[in-house]
Amino acid sequence: MTANTQLLGISNAIVDILAHVDQDFIDQIGAVTGAMNLIDEDRARDIYEKMGPATEISGGSVANTVAGFANMGGSAAFIGHVRKDQLGEIFNHDMRTLGVDIRLEPAKIGVPTGRSYILITPDGQRTMNTYLGSCTELGIADITVDTVGEPKAILLEGYVWDVAEGPALVRKAMNIAADIGASVALSLSDSHCVDRHRESFLEAVKSGVHIVIADDDEIGALMQTDTFEDSVAAVAEYDNLFVLTRSERGSVIVHRDKHVVQEATPVDKVVDSTGAGDAYCAGFLYGWANDWPLDECALIGTYCATRVIQQLGARIEPGLLDDYSPGVSDSADS
Amino acid sequence: MTANTQLLGISNAIVDILAHVDQDFIDQIGAVTGAMNLIDEDRARDIYEKMGPATEISGGSVANTVAGFANMGGSAAFIGHVRKDQLGEIFNHDMRTLGVDIRLEPAKIGVPTGRSYILITPDGQRTMNTYLGSCTELGIADITVDTVGEPKAILLEGYVWDVAEGPALVRKAMNIAADIGASVALSLSDSHCVDRHRESFLEAVKSGVHIVIADDDEIGALMQTDTFEDSVAAVAEYDNLFVLTRSERGSVIVHRDKHVVQEATPVDKVVDSTGAGDAYCAGFLYGWANDWPLDECALIGTYCATRVIQQLGARIEPGLLDDYSPGVSDSADS
Repeated sequence: MTANTQLLGISNAIVDILAHVDQDFIDQIGAVTGAMNLIDEDRARDIYEKMGPATEISGGSVANTVAGFANMGGSAAFIGHVRKDQLGEIFNHDMRTLGVDIRLEPAKIGVPTGRSYILITPDGQRTMNTYLGSCTELGIADITVDTVGEPKAILLEGYVWDVAEGPALVRKAMNIAADIGASVALSLSDSHCVDRHRESFLEAVKSGVHIVIADDDEIGALMQTDTFEDSVAAVAEYDNLFVLTRSERGSVIVHRDKHVVQEATPVDKVVDSTGAGDAYCAGFLYGWANDWPLDECALIGTYCATRVIQQLGARIEPGLLDDYSPGVSDSADS
Repeated sequence: MTANTQLLGISNAIVDILAHVDQDFIDQIGAVTGAMNLIDEDRARDIYEKMGPATEISGGSVANTVAGFANMGGSAAFIGHVRKDQLGEIFNHDMRTLGVDIRLEPAKIGVPTGRSYILITPDGQRTMNTYLGSCTELGIADITVDTVGEPKAILLEGYVWDVAEGPALVRKAMNIAADIGASVALSLSDSHCVDRHRESFLEAVKSGVHIVIADDDEIGALMQTDTFEDSVAAVAEYDNLFVLTRSERGSVIVHRDKHVVQEATPVDKVVDSTGAGDAYCAGFLYGWANDWPLDECALIGTYCATRVIQQLGARIEPGLLDDYSPGVSDSADS
């Protein structure tokens, strides 16, 4: 079962709990607007009591990407920590039903499954308040040659560093990857996360990580650059493959002196921008895992992102990519 | 807290679990397309394992109506049975946060909170597969002068009859209503449900129920009539107030020889027809509870239904009715 896995995600297992609020609500609870705010159990209870009726849907950035990858027909697996409770069952169901191989059993003891209270303001911004819950119990003991298997690539994200054993388990995963010849991709999560763990991220990028996935804020935070052009120049000094996304300004793939510039596809109406980066990543890695040229990887990444922002929710719905033909997307320019 | 309650709902507490499927899937699991299929725990597990990624959102017909009623500013309460688990917490949160007074504590033992696996086919039809779970434990002991309080009206629905102690607890609620001078409204749920419990429904309509809420299929099943015109003639023989909805054909209110005909409001696009009847009921009862004339009750009911079919999900979102002025809706004709 593990031998043919193309992509293994290792990260937080989160169920999103989404509600519409006004800006006053965000100010009142003192959250940073538009950011991912880590909260403890008491604060989670407090915010949930105050926020309005909600919708629950499986989330987590790497999990979204892995789900999208499997949804496209890729072979995918996931290592994440849920409690044996209803939210954990929901999370695992939503992965398994797409064919994702769930590598860890739900924990019979411990804190409940993690969730993110996502507050959507009228301007469309999403303020995430994440109670990591059971995710915090993901540890180095969960990363073994058995649970990792032999994937073509392992996808990690910055948020894993927020978990107590995160830095250690990431290192262990990178060591196993090196032993089995797997590539390691790292998505930087958000610029505040980069600020929290910058030195450790840089060390990982220099030793162990092959592909870095970031938006312009995140790569600016990592490279300590002020403009996107400076970031592109800075990352060209590294050996890694950089996948840099810029929302409506498209994306740029940088590998040393090789650049691929991909324009975004104009859309009439953005229904919900959540998961655009995760969907891009799913598409890009799907192309990459199938040895497509980088420009085609960027094209299908753009296609996935374009589709996901025209629907509600962060994950590509089954069948959404049925009409995709490589090189014949509805991208404006390629 | 109970003295000023306008509307008390007594019914099933259900979390909807929605996923898109093709017609083959419905055929394969042997469900009746477009109907509410009652399922047991084993079948619930089987269907959930087979169905795709889902979205969770609080549901239940009476609960939707009570939530909408509170959302409009009405004073509302609910008696329903959930287990003390995460789905139960979600259900109660989504009610409480609208100001609905939840009258029962979650059960610390017993089967898990009820849920309905709602399968949406490409033609927009919804096939419900409902595992009642903790709802089946709602019993006559839960209906007391304390839990009922002194509402202006009690809303029941046909599905309550599917619960073991349903008929008995409904009778107890009607007796308490008679003692305190509260009105009783009964929503007929669906025509299959009417077929299951027709005699008992007729008895309730003749003694205890004041307002009957039904669509054309349901009232046809209850009155054993073939056409809507025949149903209207048949219900005029009863003393009850009948609220009859007909989707895009509008609604008709019948009270003996008094008729109010309300046209539907044309919409460009039906996003999701789920909850149209529940929303109509919320609006109508809101007007009724505030002693509005019947034509204005029908008007605001239509307004609510028109709004809810233009959004995803069965419940009216907070703020959706902020711009409603009595008598100045966007209804075509009134």
